[in-house]
Amino acid sequence: MSGEAVKIRLYLEQPLGAGQGLDLSRDHAHYLFNVMRLGPGATVAVFNGQDGAWLAEVAEAGKRGGTLLCRHQIAPQRDPPDLWLVFAPIKKARTDFIVEKAAEMGAARILPVQTEFTNSDRIRQDRLQAHAVEAAEQCGGTFVPVVENLQPLSRLLANWPDGRALIWADEGLADAAEPCALPPAPAALLIGPEGGFSPSERDRLRKRPAIHPIALGPRILRADTAAVAALTLWQSTQGDWL
Amino acid sequence: MSGEAVKIRLYLEQPLGAGQGLDLSRDHAHYLFNVMRLGPGATVAVFNGQDGAWLAEVAEAGKRGGTLLCRHQIAPQRDPPDLWLVFAPIKKARTDFIVEKAAEMGAARILPVQTEFTNSDRIRQDRLQAHAVEAAEQCGGTFVPVVENLQPLSRLLANWPDGRALIWADEGLADAAEPCALPPAPAALLIGPEGGFSPSERDRLRKRPAIHPIALGPRILRADTAAVAALTLWQSTQGDWL
Repeated sequence: MSGEAVKIRLYLEQPLGAGQGLDLSRDHAHYLFNVMRLGPGATVAVFNGQDGAWLAEVAEAGKRGGTLLCRHQIAPQRDPPDLWLVFAPIKKARTDFIVEKAAEMGAARILPVQTEFTNSDRIRQDRLQAHAVEAAEQCGGTFVPVVENLQPLSRLLANWPDGRALIWADEGLADAAEPCALPPAPAALLIGPEGGFSPSERDRLRKRPAIHPIALGPRILRADTAAVAALTLWQSTQGDWL
Repeated sequence: MSGEAVKIRLYLEQPLGAGQGLDLSRDHAHYLFNVMRLGPGATVAVFNGQDGAWLAEVAEAGKRGGTLLCRHQIAPQRDPPDLWLVFAPIKKARTDFIVEKAAEMGAARILPVQTEFTNSDRIRQDRLQAHAVEAAEQCGGTFVPVVENLQPLSRLLANWPDGRALIWADEGLADAAEPCALPPAPAALLIGPEGGFSPSERDRLRKRPAIHPIALGPRILRADTAAVAALTLWQSTQGDWL
Protein backbone atom coordinates (compact mmCIF):
# COMPACT_ATOMS: atom_id res chain seq x y z
CA MET A 1 0.00 0.00 0.00
CA SER A 2 2.84 2.38 -0.85
CA GLY A 3 1.05 4.38 -3.48
CA GLU A 4 3.10 2.85 -6.29
CA ALA A 5 1.35 0.13 -8.22
CA VAL A 6 4.26 -2.26 -8.58
CA LYS A 7 2.96 -5.72 -9.35
CA ILE A 8 6.19 -7.63 -9.83
CA ARG A 9 8.07 -8.41 -6.64
CA LEU A 10 11.46 -10.11 -6.64
CA TYR A 11 13.46 -11.51 -3.78
CA LEU A 12 17.20 -10.87 -4.31
CA GLU A 13 20.08 -11.91 -2.10
CA GLN A 14 21.91 -8.60 -2.49
CA PRO A 15 22.23 -5.42 -0.41
CA LEU A 16 19.57 -2.82 -1.29
CA GLY A 17 20.00 0.94 -1.09
CA ALA A 18 19.50 4.10 -3.14
CA GLY A 19 21.61 4.04 -6.30
CA GLN A 20 22.66 0.43 -5.77
CA GLY A 21 23.09 -1.65 -8.94
CA LEU A 22 21.54 -5.13 -8.79
CA ASP A 23 22.70 -8.02 -10.94
CA LEU A 24 19.98 -10.30 -12.21
CA SER A 25 20.33 -14.07 -12.38
CA ARG A 26 19.56 -15.84 -15.63
CA ASP A 27 16.21 -17.00 -14.20
CA HIS A 28 15.18 -13.51 -13.11
CA ALA A 29 16.28 -12.02 -16.43
CA HIS A 30 14.26 -14.62 -18.31
CA TYR A 31 11.21 -13.91 -16.15
CA LEU A 32 11.42 -10.12 -16.41
CA PHE A 33 12.46 -9.73 -20.05
CA ASN A 34 11.03 -12.77 -21.84
CA VAL A 35 7.98 -13.71 -19.77
CA MET A 36 6.89 -10.27 -18.52
CA ARG A 37 8.39 -8.39 -21.52
CA LEU A 38 9.85 -5.58 -19.45
CA GLY A 39 12.37 -3.24 -21.04
CA PRO A 40 14.77 -0.57 -19.76
CA GLY A 41 13.03 1.97 -17.52
CA ALA A 42 10.33 -0.45 -16.29
CA THR A 43 10.02 -0.73 -12.52
CA VAL A 44 9.69 -3.66 -10.17
CA ALA A 45 9.74 -4.08 -6.40
CA VAL A 46 12.67 -5.90 -4.82
CA PHE A 47 13.37 -7.08 -1.28
CA ASN A 48 16.10 -9.12 0.38
CA GLY A 49 14.52 -10.05 3.69
CA GLN A 50 16.40 -7.34 5.59
CA ASP A 51 16.17 -3.91 4.02
CA GLY A 52 12.44 -3.52 3.33
CA ALA A 53 11.02 -3.26 -0.19
CA TRP A 54 12.59 -1.00 -2.83
CA LEU A 55 11.56 0.31 -6.17
CA ALA A 56 14.07 -0.74 -8.81
CA GLU A 57 14.32 0.22 -12.46
CA VAL A 58 15.51 -1.95 -15.31
CA ALA A 59 18.88 -0.49 -16.37
CA GLU A 60 20.05 -3.22 -18.72
CA ALA A 61 17.99 -6.06 -20.19
CA GLY A 62 19.99 -8.94 -21.62
CA LYS A 63 19.26 -12.46 -22.77
CA ARG A 64 21.17 -14.13 -19.98
CA GLY A 65 21.20 -11.45 -17.36
CA GLY A 66 20.66 -7.78 -16.72
CA THR A 67 20.87 -5.02 -14.17
CA LEU A 68 18.38 -3.17 -12.01
CA LEU A 69 19.01 0.18 -10.42
CA CYS A 70 17.66 0.54 -6.89
CA ARG A 71 15.72 3.83 -6.55
CA HIS A 72 14.00 4.36 -3.20
CA GLN A 73 12.45 2.36 -0.40
CA ILE A 74 8.71 1.73 -0.81
CA ALA A 75 8.07 -0.29 2.37
CA PRO A 76 10.00 -0.68 5.61
CA GLN A 77 11.36 -4.06 6.65
CA ARG A 78 8.70 -5.95 8.53
CA ASP A 79 9.64 -9.15 10.31
CA PRO A 80 6.99 -11.58 11.52
CA PRO A 81 6.64 -12.43 15.22
CA ASP A 82 9.05 -15.03 16.60
CA LEU A 83 6.92 -18.05 15.71
CA TRP A 84 8.29 -21.35 14.41
CA LEU A 85 6.27 -23.91 12.48
CA VAL A 86 7.44 -27.46 13.21
CA PHE A 87 5.78 -30.09 11.02
CA ALA A 88 6.19 -33.64 9.75
CA PRO A 89 6.45 -33.76 5.95
CA ILE A 90 3.58 -35.47 4.18
CA LYS A 91 2.88 -36.00 0.49
CA LYS A 92 4.84 -33.69 -1.81
CA ALA A 93 2.07 -31.31 -2.86
CA ARG A 94 0.77 -30.95 0.69
CA THR A 95 4.27 -30.36 2.09
CA ASP A 96 4.82 -27.64 -0.52
CA PHE A 97 1.50 -26.20 0.52
CA ILE A 98 2.42 -26.10 4.22
CA VAL A 99 5.63 -24.19 3.45
CA GLU A 100 3.78 -21.75 1.17
CA LYS A 101 1.11 -21.11 3.81
CA ALA A 102 3.63 -20.73 6.64
CA ALA A 103 5.46 -18.04 4.68
CA GLU A 104 2.20 -16.30 3.72
CA MET A 105 0.85 -16.35 7.25
CA GLY A 106 3.99 -15.03 8.89
CA ALA A 107 5.96 -17.88 10.41
CA ALA A 108 9.54 -16.81 11.14
CA ARG A 109 11.16 -20.24 10.74
CA ILE A 110 9.99 -23.53 9.24
CA LEU A 111 11.31 -26.79 10.68
CA PRO A 112 10.45 -30.12 9.04
CA VAL A 113 10.83 -33.02 11.47
CA GLN A 114 10.80 -36.80 11.26
CA THR A 115 8.35 -38.41 13.65
CA GLU A 116 7.70 -42.12 14.17
CA PHE A 117 4.79 -42.08 11.72
CA THR A 118 6.56 -39.90 9.12
CA ASN A 119 7.14 -41.80 5.89
CA SER A 120 9.67 -39.50 4.26
CA ASP A 121 13.29 -39.69 5.38
CA ARG A 122 14.36 -36.81 3.19
CA ILE A 123 13.02 -33.55 1.83
CA ARG A 124 14.20 -31.28 -0.96
CA GLN A 125 15.18 -28.39 1.27
CA ASP A 126 16.16 -26.19 -1.70
CA ARG A 127 12.79 -26.71 -3.37
CA LEU A 128 10.90 -25.95 -0.16
CA GLN A 129 13.01 -22.83 0.39
CA ALA A 130 12.13 -21.71 -3.15
CA HIS A 131 8.43 -22.15 -2.29
CA ALA A 132 8.90 -19.91 0.76
CA VAL A 133 10.56 -17.25 -1.43
CA GLU A 134 7.76 -17.40 -3.99
CA ALA A 135 5.11 -17.10 -1.26
CA ALA A 136 6.89 -14.05 0.19
CA GLU A 137 7.02 -12.47 -3.27
CA GLN A 138 3.29 -13.13 -3.72
CA CYS A 139 2.00 -12.02 -0.34
CA GLY A 140 3.63 -8.62 -0.33
CA GLY A 141 5.89 -9.40 2.59
CA THR A 142 9.48 -8.28 3.06
CA PHE A 143 10.60 -11.35 5.02
CA VAL A 144 11.40 -14.91 3.90
CA PRO A 145 11.34 -17.62 6.57
CA VAL A 146 14.23 -20.08 6.52
CA VAL A 147 13.27 -23.68 5.81
CA GLU A 148 15.57 -25.91 7.85
CA ASN A 149 16.78 -29.35 6.90
CA LEU A 150 14.81 -32.38 8.04
CA GLN A 151 15.78 -33.53 11.54
CA PRO A 152 14.36 -36.06 14.00
CA LEU A 153 11.74 -34.58 16.32
CA SER A 154 13.60 -36.11 19.26
CA ARG A 155 16.77 -34.18 18.40
CA LEU A 156 14.90 -30.90 17.99
CA LEU A 157 13.23 -31.41 21.36
CA ALA A 158 16.50 -32.37 23.05
CA ASN A 159 17.97 -29.03 21.95
CA TRP A 160 14.84 -27.00 22.57
CA PRO A 161 15.63 -23.39 23.53
CA ASP A 162 14.68 -22.26 27.01
CA GLY A 163 11.68 -20.00 27.11
CA ARG A 164 10.16 -21.00 23.75
CA ALA A 165 6.61 -22.32 24.22
CA LEU A 166 5.68 -25.42 22.22
CA ILE A 167 2.06 -25.42 21.06
CA TRP A 168 1.09 -28.94 20.16
CA ALA A 169 -1.88 -29.57 17.88
CA ASP A 170 -3.07 -33.13 18.29
CA GLU A 171 -6.34 -35.02 17.96
CA GLY A 172 -8.45 -36.09 20.87
CA LEU A 173 -6.68 -34.03 23.49
CA ALA A 174 -8.86 -33.92 26.56
CA ASP A 175 -6.85 -31.26 28.35
CA ALA A 176 -6.35 -28.93 25.41
CA ALA A 177 -5.91 -25.22 26.00
CA GLU A 178 -8.51 -22.70 24.87
CA PRO A 179 -7.43 -21.03 21.62
CA CYS A 180 -7.50 -17.66 23.38
CA ALA A 181 -5.06 -18.91 26.02
CA LEU A 182 -2.17 -19.53 23.62
CA PRO A 183 1.27 -18.51 24.88
CA PRO A 184 2.98 -15.42 23.41
CA ALA A 185 6.23 -15.32 21.41
CA PRO A 186 8.74 -16.87 21.38
CA ALA A 187 6.63 -19.85 20.45
CA ALA A 188 6.44 -22.82 18.07
CA LEU A 189 3.53 -24.72 16.58
CA LEU A 190 3.94 -28.50 16.26
CA ILE A 191 1.82 -30.29 13.64
CA GLY A 192 1.97 -34.09 13.33
CA PRO A 193 1.90 -36.32 10.25
CA GLU A 194 -1.32 -37.78 8.81
CA GLY A 195 -1.26 -40.70 11.24
CA GLY A 196 -0.71 -38.43 14.26
CA PHE A 197 1.94 -38.94 16.89
CA SER A 198 2.88 -42.37 18.27
CA PRO A 199 1.86 -43.27 21.83
CA SER A 200 5.46 -42.90 23.05
CA GLU A 201 5.86 -39.53 21.32
CA ARG A 202 2.64 -38.31 22.91
CA ASP A 203 3.85 -39.53 26.28
CA ARG A 204 7.12 -37.65 25.96
CA LEU A 205 5.43 -34.50 24.63
CA ARG A 206 2.92 -34.51 27.44
CA LYS A 207 5.71 -34.55 30.03
CA ARG A 208 7.55 -31.53 28.65
CA PRO A 209 7.47 -28.37 30.78
CA ALA A 210 6.54 -25.61 28.29
CA ILE A 211 4.02 -27.67 26.31
CA HIS A 212 0.60 -26.25 25.33
CA PRO A 213 -1.72 -28.81 23.75
CA ILE A 214 -4.47 -27.35 21.56
CA ALA A 215 -7.48 -28.94 19.89
CA LEU A 216 -8.60 -27.90 16.43
CA GLY A 217 -12.28 -28.83 16.48
CA PRO A 218 -14.31 -32.04 16.43
CA ARG A 219 -13.26 -33.25 12.98
CA ILE A 220 -9.90 -34.78 12.08
CA LEU A 221 -7.98 -32.19 10.09
CA ARG A 222 -5.39 -33.05 7.50
CA ALA A 223 -1.90 -31.91 8.45
CA ASP A 224 -1.94 -29.05 5.94
CA THR A 225 -5.29 -27.78 7.21
CA ALA A 226 -4.11 -28.09 10.81
CA ALA A 227 -1.03 -26.00 10.01
CA VAL A 228 -3.08 -23.12 8.57
CA ALA A 229 -5.65 -23.34 11.38
CA ALA A 230 -2.98 -23.29 14.10
CA LEU A 231 -1.13 -20.38 12.43
CA THR A 232 -4.43 -18.47 12.27
CA LEU A 233 -5.23 -19.04 15.95
CA TRP A 234 -1.80 -17.90 17.08
CA GLN A 235 -1.47 -14.93 14.73
CA SER A 236 -4.97 -13.67 15.57
CA THR A 237 -4.48 -13.87 19.34
CA GLN A 238 -0.72 -13.43 19.94
CA GLY A 239 0.80 -12.45 16.62
CA ASP A 240 0.78 -9.61 14.13
CA TRP A 241 -2.87 -9.87 13.05
CA LEU A 242 -3.93 -7.88 16.08
CA MET B 1 -13.52 -42.36 18.80
CA SER B 2 -16.12 -45.09 18.99
CA GLY B 3 -13.88 -47.85 20.24
CA GLU B 4 -13.95 -49.65 16.91
CA ALA B 5 -10.90 -49.14 14.75
CA VAL B 6 -12.64 -48.84 11.41
CA LYS B 7 -10.31 -47.11 8.96
CA ILE B 8 -12.38 -47.19 5.78
CA ARG B 9 -15.28 -44.74 5.69
CA LEU B 10 -17.75 -44.61 2.83
CA TYR B 11 -20.43 -42.06 2.07
CA LEU B 12 -23.53 -43.79 0.65
CA GLU B 13 -26.75 -42.19 -0.52
CA GLN B 14 -28.93 -44.87 1.06
CA PRO B 15 -30.94 -45.17 4.29
CA LEU B 16 -28.90 -46.69 7.12
CA GLY B 17 -30.27 -48.82 9.96
CA ALA B 18 -29.67 -52.11 11.76
CA GLY B 19 -30.01 -55.08 9.41
CA GLN B 20 -30.27 -52.84 6.33
CA GLY B 21 -28.67 -54.21 3.15
CA LEU B 22 -26.58 -51.70 1.20
CA ASP B 23 -25.87 -51.99 -2.51
CA LEU B 24 -22.41 -50.96 -3.60
CA SER B 25 -21.70 -49.00 -6.75
CA ARG B 26 -19.13 -50.31 -9.18
CA ASP B 27 -16.63 -47.70 -7.95
CA HIS B 28 -17.11 -48.58 -4.30
CA ALA B 29 -16.89 -52.33 -5.06
CA HIS B 30 -13.67 -51.75 -6.98
CA TYR B 31 -12.23 -49.74 -4.12
CA LEU B 32 -13.21 -52.17 -1.37
CA PHE B 33 -12.51 -55.47 -3.10
CA ASN B 34 -9.73 -54.76 -5.60
CA VAL B 35 -7.86 -51.84 -4.06
CA MET B 36 -8.35 -52.57 -0.35
CA ARG B 37 -8.69 -56.36 -0.86
CA LEU B 38 -11.58 -56.76 1.56
CA GLY B 39 -13.55 -60.02 1.59
CA PRO B 40 -16.85 -61.13 3.12
CA GLY B 41 -17.00 -60.43 6.85
CA ALA B 42 -14.69 -57.39 6.71
CA THR B 43 -16.09 -54.24 8.26
CA VAL B 44 -16.19 -50.62 7.12
CA ALA B 45 -17.86 -47.46 8.41
CA VAL B 46 -20.65 -45.92 6.35
CA PHE B 47 -22.59 -42.67 6.63
CA ASN B 48 -25.18 -40.89 4.53
CA GLY B 49 -25.11 -37.37 5.94
CA GLN B 50 -28.27 -37.92 8.02
CA ASP B 51 -28.19 -41.09 10.12
CA GLY B 52 -24.78 -40.90 11.80
CA ALA B 53 -22.00 -43.43 11.12
CA TRP B 54 -22.68 -47.18 11.07
CA LEU B 55 -20.57 -50.29 11.12
CA ALA B 56 -21.25 -52.36 8.01
CA GLU B 57 -20.02 -55.80 7.08
CA VAL B 58 -19.19 -57.06 3.61
CA ALA B 59 -21.94 -59.58 2.77
CA GLU B 60 -21.20 -60.13 -0.92
CA ALA B 61 -18.06 -59.10 -2.82
CA GLY B 62 -18.41 -59.08 -6.60
CA LYS B 63 -16.39 -57.74 -9.50
CA ARG B 64 -18.89 -55.09 -10.45
CA GLY B 65 -20.80 -54.61 -7.23
CA GLY B 66 -21.53 -56.11 -3.86
CA THR B 67 -23.56 -55.77 -0.72
CA LEU B 68 -22.87 -54.54 2.78
CA LEU B 69 -24.95 -55.40 5.80
CA CYS B 70 -25.51 -52.51 8.21
CA ARG B 71 -24.81 -53.64 11.80
CA HIS B 72 -25.01 -50.91 14.43
CA GLN B 73 -24.49 -47.17 14.80
CA ILE B 74 -20.95 -46.22 15.84
CA ALA B 75 -21.37 -42.41 15.91
CA PRO B 76 -24.41 -40.15 16.13
CA GLN B 77 -25.24 -37.75 13.33
CA ARG B 78 -23.36 -34.51 13.86
CA ASP B 79 -24.19 -31.52 11.71
CA PRO B 80 -21.87 -28.51 11.54
CA PRO B 81 -23.06 -25.06 12.64
CA ASP B 82 -25.12 -23.07 10.13
CA LEU B 83 -22.14 -21.49 8.35
CA TRP B 84 -21.89 -20.94 4.61
CA LEU B 85 -18.68 -20.46 2.70
CA VAL B 86 -19.13 -18.14 -0.28
CA PHE B 87 -16.06 -17.91 -2.52
CA ALA B 88 -14.96 -16.94 -6.02
CA PRO B 89 -13.42 -19.90 -7.88
CA ILE B 90 -9.74 -19.57 -8.69
CA LYS B 91 -7.31 -21.99 -10.36
CA LYS B 92 -8.51 -25.57 -10.46
CA ALA B 93 -6.25 -27.10 -7.79
CA ARG B 94 -6.86 -24.22 -5.38
CA THR B 95 -10.63 -24.33 -5.90
CA ASP B 96 -10.58 -28.07 -5.16
CA PHE B 97 -8.57 -27.27 -2.09
CA ILE B 98 -11.06 -24.68 -0.82
CA VAL B 99 -13.92 -27.17 -1.12
CA GLU B 100 -11.91 -29.90 0.63
CA LYS B 101 -10.99 -27.55 3.47
CA ALA B 102 -14.53 -26.19 3.85
CA ALA B 103 -15.87 -29.74 4.27
CA GLU B 104 -13.07 -30.66 6.68
CA MET B 105 -13.52 -27.55 8.78
CA GLY B 106 -17.28 -27.82 9.10
CA ALA B 107 -18.95 -25.48 6.63
CA ALA B 108 -22.60 -26.42 6.15
CA ARG B 109 -22.97 -25.15 2.57
CA ILE B 110 -20.47 -24.13 -0.10
CA LEU B 111 -21.47 -21.45 -2.61
CA PRO B 112 -19.15 -20.59 -5.52
CA VAL B 113 -19.87 -17.11 -6.90
CA GLN B 114 -18.82 -15.07 -9.92
CA THR B 115 -17.41 -11.68 -9.04
CA GLU B 116 -16.18 -8.97 -11.39
CA PHE B 117 -12.58 -10.17 -11.11
CA THR B 118 -13.44 -13.90 -11.35
CA ASN B 119 -11.99 -15.45 -14.46
CA SER B 120 -13.98 -18.68 -14.56
CA ASP B 121 -17.53 -18.60 -15.84
CA ARG B 122 -18.15 -22.26 -15.04
CA ILE B 123 -17.19 -24.85 -12.47
CA ARG B 124 -17.49 -28.64 -12.47
CA GLN B 125 -20.06 -28.80 -9.67
CA ASP B 126 -20.10 -32.63 -9.71
CA ARG B 127 -16.32 -32.79 -9.29
CA LEU B 128 -16.35 -30.26 -6.45
CA GLN B 129 -19.18 -32.17 -4.74
CA ALA B 130 -17.08 -35.36 -5.01
CA HIS B 131 -14.22 -33.51 -3.30
CA ALA B 132 -16.56 -32.55 -0.45
CA VAL B 133 -17.64 -36.20 -0.08
CA GLU B 134 -14.04 -37.40 -0.04
CA ALA B 135 -13.09 -34.80 2.58
CA ALA B 136 -16.03 -35.87 4.78
CA GLU B 137 -14.92 -39.52 4.45
CA GLN B 138 -11.37 -38.54 5.44
CA CYS B 139 -12.10 -36.23 8.33
CA GLY B 140 -14.32 -38.61 10.26
CA GLY B 141 -17.41 -36.45 9.88
CA THR B 142 -20.97 -37.63 9.32
CA PHE B 143 -22.08 -34.62 7.27
CA VAL B 144 -21.37 -33.61 3.66
CA PRO B 145 -21.86 -29.95 2.72
CA VAL B 146 -23.72 -29.29 -0.51
CA VAL B 147 -21.69 -27.52 -3.19
CA GLU B 148 -24.03 -25.22 -5.09
CA ASN B 149 -23.76 -24.27 -8.74
CA LEU B 150 -21.86 -21.13 -9.70
CA GLN B 151 -24.00 -17.99 -9.51
CA PRO B 152 -23.29 -14.27 -9.77
CA LEU B 153 -22.46 -12.67 -6.42
CA SER B 154 -25.04 -9.95 -7.19
CA ARG B 155 -27.83 -12.53 -7.50
CA LEU B 156 -26.84 -14.28 -4.27
CA LEU B 157 -26.81 -10.95 -2.45
CA ALA B 158 -30.17 -9.89 -3.96
CA ASN B 159 -31.74 -13.04 -2.50
CA TRP B 160 -29.81 -12.96 0.76
CA PRO B 161 -31.83 -14.49 3.62
CA ASP B 162 -32.90 -12.21 6.45
CA GLY B 163 -30.90 -12.68 9.62
CA ARG B 164 -27.84 -14.33 8.06
CA ALA B 165 -24.71 -12.33 8.87
CA LEU B 166 -22.23 -11.85 6.01
CA ILE B 167 -18.60 -11.87 7.14
CA TRP B 168 -16.49 -10.29 4.46
CA ALA B 169 -12.76 -10.98 4.32
CA ASP B 170 -11.04 -8.32 2.28
CA GLU B 171 -7.64 -6.68 2.13
CA GLY B 172 -6.88 -3.28 3.54
CA LEU B 173 -10.11 -2.85 5.47
CA ALA B 174 -9.66 0.00 7.89
CA ASP B 175 -12.85 -0.64 9.82
CA ALA B 176 -12.50 -4.41 10.14
CA ALA B 177 -14.07 -6.17 13.10
CA GLU B 178 -11.98 -7.88 15.75
CA PRO B 179 -11.81 -11.62 15.13
CA CYS B 180 -13.37 -12.20 18.54
CA ALA B 181 -16.35 -10.04 17.62
CA LEU B 182 -17.59 -12.24 14.77
CA PRO B 183 -21.37 -12.69 14.55
CA PRO B 184 -22.92 -16.05 15.53
CA ALA B 185 -24.82 -18.46 13.26
CA PRO B 186 -26.57 -18.21 10.90
CA ALA B 187 -23.61 -16.70 9.14
CA ALA B 188 -21.63 -16.79 5.89
CA LEU B 189 -17.99 -16.12 5.08
CA LEU B 190 -17.25 -14.30 1.82
CA ILE B 191 -13.82 -14.78 0.24
CA GLY B 192 -12.87 -12.87 -2.90
CA PRO B 193 -10.84 -13.95 -5.94
CA GLU B 194 -7.07 -13.43 -6.24
CA GLY B 195 -7.52 -9.87 -7.47
CA GLY B 196 -9.91 -8.96 -4.66
CA PHE B 197 -13.26 -7.27 -5.13
CA SER B 198 -13.85 -4.46 -7.61
CA PRO B 199 -14.38 -0.91 -6.31
CA SER B 200 -18.10 -1.06 -7.12
CA GLU B 201 -18.48 -4.46 -5.44
CA ARG B 202 -16.75 -3.13 -2.35
CA ASP B 203 -19.02 -0.11 -2.39
CA ARG B 204 -22.13 -2.25 -2.54
CA LEU B 205 -20.86 -4.69 0.11
CA ARG B 206 -20.00 -1.88 2.45
CA LYS B 207 -23.56 -0.52 2.29
CA ARG B 208 -25.24 -3.81 3.19
CA PRO B 209 -26.91 -3.94 6.60
CA ALA B 210 -25.69 -7.24 8.10
CA ILE B 211 -22.12 -6.97 6.79
CA HIS B 212 -19.10 -7.69 9.01
CA PRO B 213 -15.74 -6.87 7.39
CA ILE B 214 -12.77 -8.75 8.82
CA ALA B 215 -9.04 -8.39 8.25
CA LEU B 216 -6.75 -11.40 8.06
CA GLY B 217 -3.42 -9.92 9.02
CA PRO B 218 -0.86 -7.60 7.43
CA ARG B 219 0.13 -9.86 4.52
CA ILE B 220 -1.95 -10.50 1.41
CA LEU B 221 -3.34 -14.02 1.71
CA ARG B 222 -4.14 -16.18 -1.27
CA ALA B 223 -7.85 -16.95 -1.57
CA ASP B 224 -7.39 -20.55 -0.41
CA THR B 225 -5.42 -19.46 2.67
CA ALA B 226 -7.99 -16.78 3.45
CA ALA B 227 -10.78 -19.37 3.32
CA VAL B 228 -9.08 -21.65 5.86
CA ALA B 229 -8.12 -18.70 8.08
CA ALA B 230 -11.66 -17.28 8.10
CA LEU B 231 -13.19 -20.71 8.79
CA THR B 232 -10.75 -21.12 11.71
CA LEU B 233 -11.61 -17.74 13.20
CA TRP B 234 -15.34 -18.34 13.03
CA GLN B 235 -15.29 -21.98 14.19
CA SER B 236 -12.98 -21.19 17.11
CA THR B 237 -15.07 -18.25 18.36
CA GLN B 238 -18.67 -18.98 17.26
CA GLY B 239 -18.69 -22.51 15.90
CA ASP B 240 -18.26 -26.08 17.04
CA TRP B 241 -14.58 -25.86 18.02
CA LEU B 242 -15.53 -24.40 21.38
